[in-house]
Amino acid sequence: MRNLVIQTDFGTGSLSVGAMHGVCAMVSQDLKVADGNNDVAQFNVLDASESLMYQLPYWPTGTVFVSVVDPGVGTKRKSCVALTKTGQYIVTPDNGTLTYIAERIGIEAVREIDESVNRLKGSEDVFIFHGRDVYAYCGARLAAGVIDFEGVGPAYPVEEVVLADYPHPVHENGMVSGMIVEATEHFGLVGTNIPFPWMEEEGMKYGDKVRVVVKNNDEVVLDEIIPLVPTFGYVGLNEPLVFSSETRMVMLAKNQGNATKDYHLGYGPTWTMTVTKA
Amino acid sequence: MRNLVIQTDFGTGSLSVGAMHGVCAMVSQDLKVADGNNDVAQFNVLDASESLMYQLPYWPTGTVFVSVVDPGVGTKRKSCVALTKTGQYIVTPDNGTLTYIAERIGIEAVREIDESVNRLKGSEDVFIFHGRDVYAYCGARLAAGVIDFEGVGPAYPVEEVVLADYPHPVHENGMVSGMIVEATEHFGLVGTNIPFPWMEEEGMKYGDKVRVVVKNNDEVVLDEIIPLVPTFGYVGLNEPLVFSSETRMVMLAKNQGNATKDYHLGYGPTWTMTVTKA
Amino acid sequence: MRNLVIQTDFGTGSLSVGAMHGVCAMVSQDLKVADGNNDVAQFNVLDASESLMYQLPYWPTGTVFVSVVDPGVGTKRKSCVALTKTGQYIVTPDNGTLTYIAERIGIEAVREIDESVNRLKGSEDVFIFHGRDVYAYCGARLAAGVIDFEGVGPAYPVEEVVLADYPHPVHENGMVSGMIVEATEHFGLVGTNIPFPWMEEEGMKYGDKVRVVVKNNDEVVLDEIIPLVPTFGYVGLNEPLVFSSETRMVMLAKNQGNATKDYHLGYGPTWTMTVTKA
Repeated sequence: MRNLVIQTDFGTGSLSVGAMHGVCAMVSQDLKVADGNNDVAQFNVLDASESLMYQLPYWPTGTVFVSVVDPGVGTKRKSCVALTKTGQYIVTPDNGTLTYIAERIGIEAVREIDESVNRLKGSEDVFIFHGRDVYAYCGARLAAGVIDFEGVGPAYPVEEVVLADYPHPVHENGMVSGMIVEATEHFGLVGTNIPFPWMEEEGMKYGDKVRVVVKNNDEVVLDEIIPLVPTFGYVGLNEPLVFSSETRMVMLAKNQGNATKDYHLGYGPTWTMTVTKA
Repeated sequence: MRNLVIQTDFGTGSLSVGAMHGVCAMVSQDLKVADGNNDVAQFNVLDASESLMYQLPYWPTGTVFVSVVDPGVGTKRKSCVALTKTGQYIVTPDNGTLTYIAERIGIEAVREIDESVNRLKGSEDVFIFHGRDVYAYCGARLAAGVIDFEGVGPAYPVEEVVLADYPHPVHENGMVSGMIVEATEHFGLVGTNIPFPWMEEEGMKYGDKVRVVVKNNDEVVLDEIIPLVPTFGYVGLNEPLVFSSETRMVMLAKNQGNATKDYHLGYGPTWTMTVTKA
Repeated sequence: MRNLVIQTDFGTGSLSVGAMHGVCAMVSQDLKVADGNNDVAQFNVLDASESLMYQLPYWPTGTVFVSVVDPGVGTKRKSCVALTKTGQYIVTPDNGTLTYIAERIGIEAVREIDESVNRLKGSEDVFIFHGRDVYAYCGARLAAGVIDFEGVGPAYPVEEVVLADYPHPVHENGMVSGMIVEATEHFGLVGTNIPFPWMEEEGMKYGDKVRVVVKNNDEVVLDEIIPLVPTFGYVGLNEPLVFSSETRMVMLAKNQGNATKDYHLGYGPTWTMTVTKA
């Protein structure tokens, strides 16, 4: 019996997520279904991909992730199940959600969902909410062992998986740079796609002060000298710090404060951060 | 072993819902307890009823739903368990929450909860939060098989179940009309209680343009010609569409936009929508 | 197999909570993991303690609570597991979160988490989010029986548990007084740490009118005569009432209204409520 983890952009507490849990229970009462994250940014396939990257390493091999960020629901886009090189399954529209998985973890194989088999019976006249009728239903069947991976539907080349475009991180000449991938309201954490070990490779280490420049497109939104430290308590209350996120990416925050609000930061492909030794 | 699904108006994330989960675990560690929807509109029994209608068809036969929208807690109103004609149980105050269930699915039998048996011991001096002490406790006992349906308490006539008043949907002469039952903030989806198949019966089909008139009491809030299509992607970004909801009711939305906000729409008995062929 | 209940100040729906569920599943697929409350006030150890007091009595003996309100993450504070006198376990930073537990329920024994054993392997270079790498991991091992209580790490004296300072409740001469410990946005419920039975000891009973004085530091924010009744329905719509909370503490609210908003109330050590017979 495998775990099934749901992520959507429906909003935490959405009763639509409740119905997805119900469909899973109809497939098998023995399934273990958890909510991974239902606050993926609306229609944002890169945020869905980021969220998967955050969750995958902390769930057992064989876990089935059902990801529903699906602005193209009911139109022409493949519905698929990807098997990652780490032995986990992702059930999702093939719309860019798999971008970071393909690039950083690797996709072993991918299959298009055969809706003649793996779609909730009687739902054929519903053209929205495939999260319930296709993705949860197919994912639950896979997790419960009703079907195996081959039973999902026909395989197609991994090279055909849809990849979204975004600013890739770079490092050279004492500088690291990349995209801001999250800027939370709650704690005001500002995350990037810059691997933290690159900081050391570029000569920056704990205890140093670094210069952080954030741009939204070409506009400089932040340009400040900030300490590089292991964790919050190394700086005073409400003071900024640069540190390693729990996924080992470069992160910016304020100790018990809110960097997102104070610095008016956002995230996504137009937002970049560059860090150099001060 | 049956599933138990909780819905309340306590707000998603309420620690009171956590305590309800705990009471269920005290009754039986083997129960499967899920949150269906804890964002029912406060004190709104029709919204509770709508939410049950949304969930019920997607959970297995035998599932026990515990619904706690209970503005009359601690005063005179029956606490009951209804057995639906589809073989599911609803544990709820008998205060209008069962309205749509009675009318559309049908109630096979209803029993008043005998609190001398089916109330958490030691809670007799607590006059609020029957969600924890009566509804979750009784529902968990039923789901876990500690009691059977007869063990809930004395039966009473199904005809005595409290029904709330609201604008019933109608269709005639090329027109469908009914109440707006939801207008979400999140995706801006505007749902009605008008069965979608009525559109075709009244001569409207995919590809047509339809005239949508929304009133709040007698005030016309929206009067617009809108395409009738299968799903979002059939119209341009941020353009409106009329379509079938996943529960096969007439729905209004904007493609990746927000019809609720843009049109300033609300929901409930004062809000009606009328659709005719344009 | 024991239940594991998570509470954090990460915000309901946080994907970090999802990762904690995942770590639990990696330890054992048989664990029953529930979310108790992820909306603990940020960095607020007294609110974490209050939330534990609310949940503990309604979960089975042996339940493991993982509480992560941890502003000092990665700096010098003990990580511990406390065994309560009621036979439940609390996995938490020893930072004041155990205050009310120690004072009202009692702590039987406490052990410091030995991170050389009870920390997720490979996480040693992550200095934030011990909720995932230490607390969820250690709690899951304890709940799943991988370790017993002794296996947590070395015991230390219960007297050394960190207690936070706050206004203790008092009663004398027909008066009860204490701290406001919650003032919810959702229903506008205003809770205190004053045991409700003290009302009767001080000569106040249902049907009486009482004088409620609320101060924020020395400023009088509310001074009003309010009925003392068993539950909401005993007063008119939107009228105030004083009553017993479901945890049998003195509470203030408005019937289907919002006392928090209407009276501009807050909570925490600076907020006190005094009630006398009117």
